[in-house]
Parts: sequence; structure tokens; C-alpha cells
Amino acid sequence: MVQATALPRNEAGIETVIGVLKQRFGDRLQTSAAIREQHGHTTTWIENQSPDAVVFPHTTQEVSDIVKTCAAHRVPVIPFGTGTSLEGHVNAPAGGISVDLMQMDKVLAVHAEDLDCVVQPGVTREALNTHLRDQGLFFPIDPGANASLGGMAATRASGTNAVRYGTMKDNVLSLEAVMPDGQIIRTGRRAKKSSAGYDLARLLIGAEGTLGIITELTLRLQGIPEAISSARCSFPTVDAACRAVMMTIQYGIPVARIEFLDEMSVQAANAYSGLSLPETPLLLLEFHGSESGAVEQAETFGQIAEEFGGTDFAATSTTEERNKLWQARHDMYWACLQLRPGARGISTDVCVPISRLAECVTETQQKAADLGLLAPMVGHVGDGNFHTLLLIDMENADEVAKAEEFVGWLNDMAISMEGTCTGEHGIGQGKQLYLIKELGAATKYMAAIKAALDPENIMNPGKILSDVT
Amino acid sequence: MVQATALPRNEAGIETVIGVLKQRFGDRLQTSAAIREQHGHTTTWIENQSPDAVVFPHTTQEVSDIVKTCAAHRVPVIPFGTGTSLEGHVNAPAGGISVDLMQMDKVLAVHAEDLDCVVQPGVTREALNTHLRDQGLFFPIDPGANASLGGMAATRASGTNAVRYGTMKDNVLSLEAVMPDGQIIRTGRRAKKSSAGYDLARLLIGAEGTLGIITELTLRLQGIPEAISSARCSFPTVDAACRAVMMTIQYGIPVARIEFLDEMSVQAANAYSGLSLPETPLLLLEFHGSESGAVEQAETFGQIAEEFGGTDFAATSTTEERNKLWQARHDMYWACLQLRPGARGISTDVCVPISRLAECVTETQQKAADLGLLAPMVGHVGDGNFHTLLLIDMENADEVAKAEEFVGWLNDMAISMEGTCTGEHGIGQGKQLYLIKELGAATKYMAAIKAALDPENIMNPGKILSDVT
Repeated sequence: MVQATALPRNEAGIETVIGVLKQRFGDRLQTSAAIREQHGHTTTWIENQSPDAVVFPHTTQEVSDIVKTCAAHRVPVIPFGTGTSLEGHVNAPAGGISVDLMQMDKVLAVHAEDLDCVVQPGVTREALNTHLRDQGLFFPIDPGANASLGGMAATRASGTNAVRYGTMKDNVLSLEAVMPDGQIIRTGRRAKKSSAGYDLARLLIGAEGTLGIITELTLRLQGIPEAISSARCSFPTVDAACRAVMMTIQYGIPVARIEFLDEMSVQAANAYSGLSLPETPLLLLEFHGSESGAVEQAETFGQIAEEFGGTDFAATSTTEERNKLWQARHDMYWACLQLRPGARGISTDVCVPISRLAECVTETQQKAADLGLLAPMVGHVGDGNFHTLLLIDMENADEVAKAEEFVGWLNDMAISMEGTCTGEHGIGQGKQLYLIKELGAATKYMAAIKAALDPENIMNPGKILSDVT
Repeated sequence: MVQATALPRNEAGIETVIGVLKQRFGDRLQTSAAIREQHGHTTTWIENQSPDAVVFPHTTQEVSDIVKTCAAHRVPVIPFGTGTSLEGHVNAPAGGISVDLMQMDKVLAVHAEDLDCVVQPGVTREALNTHLRDQGLFFPIDPGANASLGGMAATRASGTNAVRYGTMKDNVLSLEAVMPDGQIIRTGRRAKKSSAGYDLARLLIGAEGTLGIITELTLRLQGIPEAISSARCSFPTVDAACRAVMMTIQYGIPVARIEFLDEMSVQAANAYSGLSLPETPLLLLEFHGSESGAVEQAETFGQIAEEFGGTDFAATSTTEERNKLWQARHDMYWACLQLRPGARGISTDVCVPISRLAECVTETQQKAADLGLLAPMVGHVGDGNFHTLLLIDMENADEVAKAEEFVGWLNDMAISMEGTCTGEHGIGQGKQLYLIKELGAATKYMAAIKAALDPENIMNPGKILSDVT
């Protein structure tokens, strides 16, 4: 495990708050070791720092009351959704109360005529899409995991569909939130756009729970397209695949998804999902449009792919074939783990301008090889975003050190290419030093905002900014 | 004129700062009455509050030095672009220094392969699009006026293309800004997306210069579509036109523009632009896509229009006809003024959920009629955003009072329909009370952010938040 910095604990305050909340919430406040551990960090290699108690509110008013109680005693509050984040966002380095929002799981309204809906933060993206399907609507953001919508907003999530539909920042019309003093606010209304004051919604989106707890989201929806088709194409080199992506985006083909798998990932997918893809760099695509539009997009992409030496191009609009392909893509984490049974998977995340993507991916493959690390790569390459899944024997200190070197090197390289140290995973505990490298003086103003809105630093302390001085 | 609140002046500080800046900038600091007045509010009915001097920097470092000088003496700094804003954004209620950014007008880089560019804030949208045309690229945001890109970001501008391409908040990748203490920051990099820390770009976009001065913008670009076609269609009633819009959006037709003109606006356009459109509610549309895609979109819209009693449907893909139609749309302000020569045009701005649009527009027409006001309406109706241009005799106190009543009534109604008091014009001096009505407690946190980043309140004081207590 990688050590996470512990922060001073307010023992007396924590004890008092647990007593007060126990009175109020009864069995909806839990302090068992198992539940507490489940609400600390449980993914990747950052050590688990469990909260002291977990509370399960049902209403915004209850969240407000919890925060007010914690604020009165200066006890940390850590918002919790599905716990799928990868950089230690849900850890409790100073202890405190985890606020598990998963019982606030109602779809409050669907306004089909306005293409929006209002949901509680514990609704997952799959639950929402199941709810919407009969009305011919869907919510496009898909970060892979079946995450909660509150958590997705808090971490500015994106994923495979972002190339067409944007990220959470583009798909939230308005938020309701409980601020660090317990006040309930709304950041906006249901209008599709507004110039009314500072954009507090965009400030809370990606703030990782450090400025407030999201208690309700008004989301922009899409009509389910008339036609959806998929395609895959193999390429001789990483460079050829990335150039085909760049040309596709420049041509303005409105691809809904354009995903990259490197050789090693294709091997893993073949073995795990029973496929027989050529074991060279692969692109998987999805097209949304009218019947003729989706076909036209696939054809145009096919021509581009050919120009760059693409082979085994196959397009399909049958649901079964399409699902098989995308299931394999969604299962990549598990497929890659099978490349080295017993290893831990450490998922990294960087994003670079698309013109630098080929170079960045190629050098990353070389660096992993030089260090002797097993590191299959997948990417949401239409945005220049890719992940390496390091397969690490955590008992081998030398290997862990090499993996840390690799992650540092990769973040530095992405920043040197005018990219970012995180396209979608966020900063949490794991990337604070890279945030400073990336944005320098700007982080001081982030810290000033944090201090203004949360002067006692009770909202998810130790995340994003604790290294800013 | 409508009175704007004056704020206490720091006479000694202003005098000192003008002396210091005169030394440094010579003729690039101007204090003549004509230039000062030109840099106060010159549109609509808010009175002009001129700055004490206007300075014309050429570099970010010069902007930083100006702000540092003003900060040292607690003198207001008012950023200035083309001065086209409508709610008093550029007024100087406490005096101070207007920083005219129009000489920072260079396109610094175009990254065609990444579909982005880097510009100084004084580049106008027309200048940028002229610069980009040869490369087959364009920047889609079009607020009507040939505004500066820095000003467009500062006011979160949008306009006719927003229904497809979003607003300024969606099309800025990153900003460079001079903060209230004079520090230069960058909010992000050139990656298409990022989860690295608080979204300072989105905080500065729409902050109307109250949190810092934008000195450089990295903008997302689009490829010029293969095909562009236009259509127009007349409708028997406002309700029918609005329902056709709603259905078009629900169908997912990716219209690039869908603009509404009410009967009175059509009359004005016919007279001013020599057209012979039926004088009933009108929709003007533009479609972007492949050759077949643009045709398909127009056909699908034609079918929808027919369902709602649309008549005189005419689609065209010839550039000349298209330009004539859109020129007429762009000239609406001048066309409407001709409905009552000598009157002043007061442009209002609200935005509601599209399901409420028909009701909102109809009631607004009725209210204007009840008050005896001449008030043609146009709207970016795909977003639920519309404007009424009140034609007012400013010498007639009773009429001015009725116009004020109308504006207040309209803002209240938009808010009561879950809409916003401003879709794109911003708050400035004119809409502060409506901002509070719309967002309530949230404005306190806006004020806390303002106080944290600009404790001396030197950045464009008296805008957005001065009524928040």
C-alpha cells in the first residue's frame, strides 16, 4: 500500500458528534469496522483511512443537519457514493463522518419535453438509464463503473461517451447542495443556459466534496438515437491508430465513442471475452444518428481508417454484436487482471492534446517496458485521454517503487505536452503534487476559495489542496 | 436614463494611480471626457458612469502591472472589450481605471489538428473567424454583436448557435487571467477535458470581470461543416411555433440555429430588409452536417413544422439566400428601431425551460399590449431564451415607468417558470435584485468567493453582487 498522510484528529469532537447523530439516526449510523473500512479507499494502492462512523441520510434536510452538527464540533464530513473513485477521495485522513448518500436514490422528476431530469445523488447511472428507457431518453455519461450521479458530478466524471456528449460539467444544469455551514443552496434553475452570477454548479462539479455535498442534480438528457452502430478496426501501429483518431475528429464525424486498446489489452480481451481480434492496436467506435447518418459516419470512418493502414474493419448495427464488443471494453479491467493473476491493478489517468497522443502513448509503452512493468493501455482517445493499468505485485517493494516512478514520469510527461495529470479520475489524495506542477499559482486561488467557503476545513479534508502552501 | 447607484470614490488613490500609469503608459493612458464616456455604459437606458482614465495595455504583464498599481492604492479596475454589454457591466460607479483590452488583439496560435486556438482577449469573433476560414475551421459562438472574445467569456455569452454548440462556458478550454492582486494565473492546459482541481475557468467565465481580467483564451474550434442549409417557416400562432421548436429538440435534430421572430419583428424585418415574409410568427433555422445530413435535417424539420400548421416552408442551401435571411436576423435591432423612429431600444433577456416557452412568450406579448408598450420579440428558442426590444420614448416618464414595470414583471415570470432572469446578457448593474430572487442563499457564497479573491473590492465593483447582504 502507498502511505496516505494522516491529519490531526479532533477526538472529543468526533465522539460528541457520533453521540448526537446516533440519537438522531439510530441504526442509520454505523460504526462497525467492516462498514467503516468499506467507506474508506478500497481501490488501487492508496491505504484505507476509514471514517469513524457512517451515516445514511434520506433527505437533504438530514444532510444539512448532519453537516451542521459536524460544523458545530469541527468534525470532518466525507461524502460517499459508490466508492469507485481511484485517488483516495473517500478516505478520512483526520477521521470523521462518512455521509453515505446511496439511500437518497430517487428520480424526482423527468421532464421529457425539456430533456432534463431531477435526481437524488444516490441514483446510479444505470438505474437512471433503466428509468428513462421507456421514454426514449438516456443520460450519456458513462465512466465505466456504475457510479452514483452525485459522485460523478463531484469528481467531474466522463468516460467513453464524452467525445460526443461532454463530461459531467457539460451535462448538469443545476445542483442543490449543502454547504460547509449546513446551508442548503440551489446553484441555478432548469433553463438550458444562464448568465446569472458565478457558476457555482461548475465550481462544485469536480470539487470532490471539499466545498459542499451535492444533494440533488438537474441533468440534461438526450433522446435515444434513431440508430446506433458500432465498428472496430485494427491498426499496424499505435501511431497509425492515433492518426486515424485525429483525422476522424478533424473531419467532424460526430462519433459517440472512439476507444483505443493497445496490443496487450487486445490480448487480454481475446483471452477473457473469447474474441479473436488481431493482436495489434485496436479502435472501437460507436455512431449515433439517423439510420442513414449512422451508416454514413461508419463509412466515412472506414475510409479514414484505410488511409492509415487499418485492417479488419467491421461495422455492425445489430444490438447483439454491438453489446458483445462493448461488454468486452467494459470488462477490460477484469480481463487485464487475468494477464497476471494475483497482481493488483493500479489505474492511471492522463489526458493530452490529441496531436500529442501517439507520441505520448508510444513513449508510455516504452517506459513501462524499460521498467519491466506489465501495463496494458486503454483510452478515450477522441479526447486524448488514456489509462494504463499497472499490474503490480504489492509484496515486491522494488516493483512498487518502479510503478511509483512510472506514474510520476507519466504525469510529468502529460503536463510537459500541455496536457493534464487527470482527465477524469480527479486529484483526491494521490495527485496533489501533480496538480501544483500543472497549475502552479492558480492553486493558491483554489485554496482561497476553499478557506472562504469552509474556514474550518471540515468538508473532505486532505483532498485536492492539502499540499498547497 | 435609469439611475445607477454611485459608490464612494477614493479620490486620492485615483489621482495617484493616474499619475503612476501616465508615467508608464504615456499616450496609452487617456483621460479625455469623450474617451472616458465611450468606456462607460453606452447601450440601453442605464446612465453612463465614466471611468477616470482609460489605459490600453499590450501585454499580460502590462495588465498585471496596472492591476498591481490599482491594488496598491485600492482603485477600481474595470475591464473593457467592445462595450456591447447591456446591463451596465462597464460602468465605473466608484470611478477608477478602465482597462481597454482591444489592443491585445493577436491570434497567438491555431492548433488545427487539436481543433483549438489561443487568442488575446481583444480579438473579436469576426476577426477570429476571418483568421480561421482558410484552415476550414470556425468558432461557433455568435452573440450578434461583433464582441471581443475576452468580453464574451467574461459575460458567458452565447447567441444563435448555442443550441448546437453551447455557450462560452462550453467552448473555453483554458484561460490566462490577472487576478485582483496582480498575479498571472492559468486555469488549465490544452487537454480537451480535465479533473484537476476547482474549475477556475468556469468561475471566471460569467464573473463579468469581478474576479480577475482575462488576458488569454484557449478556445475549442469546429470544422466548417461540409454542408450548411437554412430554412424558414411561418406559423399561425406563437404556440404553434414554440411547439414545433420543442418537437425539433426532442427529436434530436442537431439544429445549428433555431430562431423565433414574433409578428411585430417580422413586420420590422420586411420593412427594413426588403423581405415579404408572411406577417405571422416565424422560425429561422440553420442546419450543419454532411450534404445528405443537412438535407435530411431540413426535411425532418419540414415534417414537424407541417404537423403544427407551419406554412411557407422554404429551405435553401445557396449561400446568397442564406446570407440574406441571416443578415435580416442580425439586423433586427436596427429594423425594430425603425418601428418607432427616435425611440430608444431596451433589450431584455430571459430564458425558461422550453416546455414553458409558448406560455411565457404569449403572456409577455399580452403584458406589453396591456401596458401599451411597443415590444417586438426575437428568441434563441432552441434554448428557451428570448429577448424583447422595448421601444421607449425616454422623455415620457410614464412610459419609462411602464417599461420598468414590464421588465420587472418579465424577470419575475421567468423565475416563476423555473427559468433565469438572464440567459446571456448577464447581471451587471441592472439585474442584481433578480439574481437574488432567482438564487437566494447561493448569492451569499458568491459574495464569499468575491471577498476571498478580491478583499479590497477593486475588480469591477458594483457589478453582480453589490446588493447581496
